[in-house]
Order: sequence, then C-alpha cells, then structure tokens
Amino acid sequence: MGVNITLAVDAMGGDHGPKVTVPAALELLTRRNDVKIILVGLPDAIEAELGSSATKWGSRLSVYPASDVVAMDEPPALALKKKKDSSMRKAIDLVHEGLADCCISAGNTGALMATARFVLKMMPGIERPAIATTLPTINGHVYLLDLGANVDCEPEHICQFGLMGSILASAVDNKDNPSVGLLNIGHEAIKGNGLIKRSAELLREAPINFYGNVEGDDIFKGTVDVVVCDGFVGNAVLKSSEGLAWMLGQMIRREFRQSIFSRLAALVALPVLNNLKRKVDHRQYNGASLLGLKGLVVKSHGGADVFAFRHALEYAVSEVSNHVLGRIQAAVSQLEKTS
Amino acid sequence: MGVNITLAVDAMGGDHGPKVTVPAALELLTRRNDVKIILVGLPDAIEAELGSSATKWGSRLSVYPASDVVAMDEPPALALKKKKDSSMRKAIDLVHEGLADCCISAGNTGALMATARFVLKMMPGIERPAIATTLPTINGHVYLLDLGANVDCEPEHICQFGLMGSILASAVDNKDNPSVGLLNIGHEAIKGNGLIKRSAELLREAPINFYGNVEGDDIFKGTVDVVVCDGFVGNAVLKSSEGLAWMLGQMIRREFRQSIFSRLAALVALPVLNNLKRKVDHRQYNGASLLGLKGLVVKSHGGADVFAFRHALEYAVSEVSNHVLGRIQAAVSQLEKTS
Repeated sequence: MGVNITLAVDAMGGDHGPKVTVPAALELLTRRNDVKIILVGLPDAIEAELGSSATKWGSRLSVYPASDVVAMDEPPALALKKKKDSSMRKAIDLVHEGLADCCISAGNTGALMATARFVLKMMPGIERPAIATTLPTINGHVYLLDLGANVDCEPEHICQFGLMGSILASAVDNKDNPSVGLLNIGHEAIKGNGLIKRSAELLREAPINFYGNVEGDDIFKGTVDVVVCDGFVGNAVLKSSEGLAWMLGQMIRREFRQSIFSRLAALVALPVLNNLKRKVDHRQYNGASLLGLKGLVVKSHGGADVFAFRHALEYAVSEVSNHVLGRIQAAVSQLEKTS
Repeated sequence: MGVNITLAVDAMGGDHGPKVTVPAALELLTRRNDVKIILVGLPDAIEAELGSSATKWGSRLSVYPASDVVAMDEPPALALKKKKDSSMRKAIDLVHEGLADCCISAGNTGALMATARFVLKMMPGIERPAIATTLPTINGHVYLLDLGANVDCEPEHICQFGLMGSILASAVDNKDNPSVGLLNIGHEAIKGNGLIKRSAELLREAPINFYGNVEGDDIFKGTVDVVVCDGFVGNAVLKSSEGLAWMLGQMIRREFRQSIFSRLAALVALPVLNNLKRKVDHRQYNGASLLGLKGLVVKSHGGADVFAFRHALEYAVSEVSNHVLGRIQAAVSQLEKTS
C-alpha cells in the first residue's frame, strides 16, 4: 500500500495548537503508512514540538509555513479578510490547489466555515454548507447535521443536508441506503412548523431512504442512521447532550466519593464504568465534516487533546479513502439532472 | 392548617389512566393534609381503582363525572371541538369556574394546551402560552421553557417566556432575582439568527436578571436559573436529553452484565449508582407548567407511573401555594403599565 492520502493539518488551531496537533499527527503517521501529513503554521512553533522526530518520516511529513494564526474568538469576516497568511487559510489553500486531500482544523468554527466556503466554493447544486458529526447510540452511531453552519435554513437546505448526510453515512460506514430522519417535535406528519413540514415533503421526494419525523430521543435510540435539522437546533442538541454527559460523569464521581463504602465500591466499579466511558468517550467521536464544499474539510473540537485530535485525523482519512467528496458530487449532479 | 388547595385531576389522561392517577392522588392526600382532590373522569373506571378507600377521605376526595376521554394521539382541534365532556375539558372547566386551583393532566399535550387556552384564555399582556419544566443541574435544577407549545416564535414571545420563567423560579424556589439565559449557539452577542438577536435585545430591557446568551451545555452546568428558547428547540433539547440519559442507563446496566467480574462489581456498585439515579430520576422532575393562561395547569408526562404522577401533583401544589398565577399576573400588568 503506497502513500495515497495527504492531509493538510492546521497545526496552530484549537485551544492547544501544536502541543496537540503535532503529537497527534505523529501518532497517525505511525498507525497509517498510507498517509502523508503537511503541518501548516508557524515553523518555529511546529518544529519545537517535532523535535528530532521530524526527519524520521521523510517525505511523509512536511511543514508548510504560515505566518499568522486565526484566534478562537475572531469574527469570521475579519479572519477571512485580514488573515490571508493564517495556518487555517493556508491549509485550506492546499486542498484547493490539489496538494492535499483534506484539511483538518481545531480552530474557530465560523472562520473555518467562512474561509473554506470562500476558497473552495460550494458544490454546484448545494446552496449551504453543513456541519455533520457522529454521536453514539445504544447500538452504534448516528450522523447529526447541521450543527451550526446555518442558523436560518430553508426547506431546500434541510433536504440537501439529508442527501449529503445519507451519502456520508453510506460512504464512511459502507452502509446501503442509510435511513434519514427529520428532527421534529412529534412523529406525526402534522407536527412542527412550516419549515419542517415543507422540508419533510422535499425529503420524501429526494432519492434517499427517508424515514420520516424523529424526535430528540430517537437520536440516541439509533432509530435512524442520519438525523437532519437546522443548525440552530442541531447545535443546541449537541451541546446540551455534551453538558448532560459531563454532568452525569461528575455526579458519578461525586457519588463514589461520598462514603467509605462508596469509595470501596468505586475500586471494583470504576474499571467497569471506565470501560463504558471508553465506548461513549466523545473524544473518539471528534471530527465533524464540513459538507457541501468542493473539497474536504474536517473540524476538530477546539479543546481536543492528542487522543481526540488523532481521531479527527483518522476520521479525515476515512472520508478521503471512502471518496466522500466524489460520491456527494455524483449524487448532487444526478439530482440536478433529474430535477 | 386547613384544607386550602384544591386540585382537579384528569383521572383518565396518560398512558395508564386511573391505574396511575388514582393511587397517586391517594398518596398525595396522605402526604398533604391541606389538599383536596377532585378526580375527573368516567366514574366506574375511577371507582374501580378507589375501592374501599373512597370514603376514608370525606370531602377531601371527590369524583366529578366526565363521559369522554381525549385520546393520546387525537388532533388538538378535534379534541377541543368534539370532546366537550372529556375528563380533560371538565378538569380545566373546574379551574375556570374557580372550583379548583390547578388542573393536572397526563393527557395529550396539544389537546391540553388548546383546551386550556380556549377555556381559561390568555393572561392580558401575554400572547403565547409556554410549557416550562425543571431539569437537574450539577448543583440543583434549572427551568427550561418553552418546550413545545410554540413552534414559530416571535422575539416578543421569547421575552415574555423569560419574564414568566423568572417569576416561576422566584415563586416556586423562593429565589430572589433568578438569572435568565437565552439559549443560543454561542455566548457572544453577534451569534445566532435574527430571532435570537432581537429576543436578546428585548430580554435586556425586561425587568428581569438577564444573563445573556447561554449554550446547550450551560443548561446542565447550572449557569443560570432559567433558560428560554423557542418551543421547537426546547422540545428537541428536552427529548434528546431524555434519550441520552436512557441510553447511558441502558449501557451501564449492560456493562455490569458483561462478565463474572462485572456482575460482582455490580453488587457493590449498584447501591451507589441507584443513589445517583434517585437524584437525577426524571420522574421527580415530572410536572410541566402551562404558563401565560388565566389559570394554573400542570402537564404530567404521558408515560408517568404513580411515583412520577404524584410528583406532578406535588409540583402543582407548590405552584398553588406559592401563588405563581397571581405573581405572573402582577408582573405582567406592571410591565404593561410601564411600557
């Protein structure tokens, strides 16, 4: 197996920058010998983390200089206008120029989306980009989109999210005809607002396996393979789920510290609970796809640690090796022809 | 302490009807000697559950006949039009006629809202009713509204939800100046859609302790006392949280059944985990307020068991004894005068 996948990593992005991105990149190189990584950012900062291991990887590892960094709280429009030599911009440029198959960044989501949209442009037939991620379910995982790229959606956008989500699930999970559910406040077709009712009509006509309406609890019950919603709702659901999981984790820890008995119980229970924790660890679900662009971009959680960022890199590799971009393009142009 | 609180209980509502509502009512009578309960519904069905205990409570327990039942999946408009002698309708009528202080139903939410709005009418100054409930947080609980009464909100409605939620929290929890957060996809004021930005402006001017934007994870972190959002978002957040909590519960159980070791671990760990489960048990958070009406209505989860339904009754008692209705009315009329 030759080297056939090239990732452009925004080494400066995220809360921890090169301290996380560089070791994660090195871990990935060890695990996947078909991958080449270009670390984009301030050379000094990157090389300080690389140390002596830089030369070991030969042409599979390179540093691409960028003199600027987009701040985590920088307004997207400003980042786009003023930071043309940022690590984020340069990493996306590499995808645009065909020098990398996918760009991965833990940076500012708004800036990443705005820059990717400006540089890579939208796929013909797709009006709005969407952010998609996977979440654990009782028996596997589910794709949820949009997660915040769009806060004012039209039914056409939601329908396009359904199409893109369906292709993503079928490509990455090698699943035939994945089922797509529309997030609503009831299962019945009469429920919901005008946006949702019209979206359901469009999804019903789309060339996907449309399940119909689903409710919030269906996300984690694994009722469908893909759940679509507008970006505001998706973001609220994702973040509240993260908050609830965090709270329960804290409470379990607190409960086991309550008394001598519970401290003893913890000794035997914690290995079992840690086993579960590994299974639902949000870090291994790190890596959200920016869909609808003429190039692959994966967003990592800003606070990702090395383990989480490596998972985002692995997720990017699976998108590239499963030809997500080409498959979405083909499906969209097929749809354009028939409509 | 004399009997000074009268509850009208829709005895037929919910998935289990009188099998749940009647024993829960009897439990409440035992616990609160200041409460009188009117069980509304098919007398035969209610009396079958009451058995010999009917007479024991004297005037504190009575049965008010209603010949019809609203089905759980009945369209609200139909229920309102065709079921004028339903247990739900009659229970609300009792509040309207001043014969009861609060109506409690585990029935069809849409029908309950439509009927309550028709019979009781909206409070002057409030344009839309809202559904509010409490959720556990890391250090207490939070009020979340709206949970689905409104799927297309205007900024004015969201601002009114903030006012009503603030008064609810201050009345029921006896908390001075509770903080109110607006659910958004970022903390910064520039985030969100037009609805949210305008809602934030109105909330900033309202006579409440407005915290500003909060994100989904802030709900469970206890960042604020009250979180407001439109009904679509609130419903999606509430149900996805229920789904996630259910999934984690299932997974914990499954994990402890995996091996001999984990089964042994379960023996010592389960008492600790059950202790936690009691703390976050959604059944004790059962009881959502229908706010903005000229009368108190509490909605119980449709699938409530006796324990959960009793909690909804207790919640109704706390709304009555804390004068939630009068306080909201006073605040709204104060607002009307000053604006």
